[in-house]
Amino acid sequence: MKTRVFVTLKPSVFDPQGRTIVEALQSMGYGSVRDVRQGKYFELDVAAESADAARSVASEVADKLLANPVIESYRIEVDGDDGS
Amino acid sequence: MKTRVFVTLKPSVFDPQGRTIVEALQSMGYGSVRDVRQGKYFELDVAAESADAARSVASEVADKLLANPVIESYRIEVDGDDGS
Repeated sequence: MKTRVFVTLKPSVFDPQGRTIVEALQSMGYGSVRDVRQGKYFELDVAAESADAARSVASEVADKLLANPVIESYRIEVDGDDGS
Repeated sequence: MKTRVFVTLKPSVFDPQGRTIVEALQSMGYGSVRDVRQGKYFELDVAAESADAARSVASEVADKLLANPVIESYRIEVDGDDGS
């Protein structure tokens, strides 16, 4: 089952990569881009019976390996599920 | 307008980061995760009149800065739009 995990820095954490992208875009003439936050994106292929089971595995995996819970939060989407 | 850009390696491109994550997960007991592809995720705050205008700016920005069109493809979602 195809499962997507989006990992982003918590809003209170400064994102120097995103800041650098905004500055690069402004120097390229894209002043309309006011802010950028960079995150990570993972597509997992999980062998699971149901969307709930796939979500549960993805959530454990995100907690233990994909995200750093001190500074990052994550969101999970499972194909055929309505998201959380 | 909040715009999300998902950058992923093209399917034909080998993803060693994803492979490493799969191997780590298998050694941690998550054998049900059969495949992982890692990508990048950007949240852009674009000053635009409409979702179409925001999508157009995000698309240019992705082509020119966020993605490497040789090996990566991208997908854009705009808040209040139905996706592409």
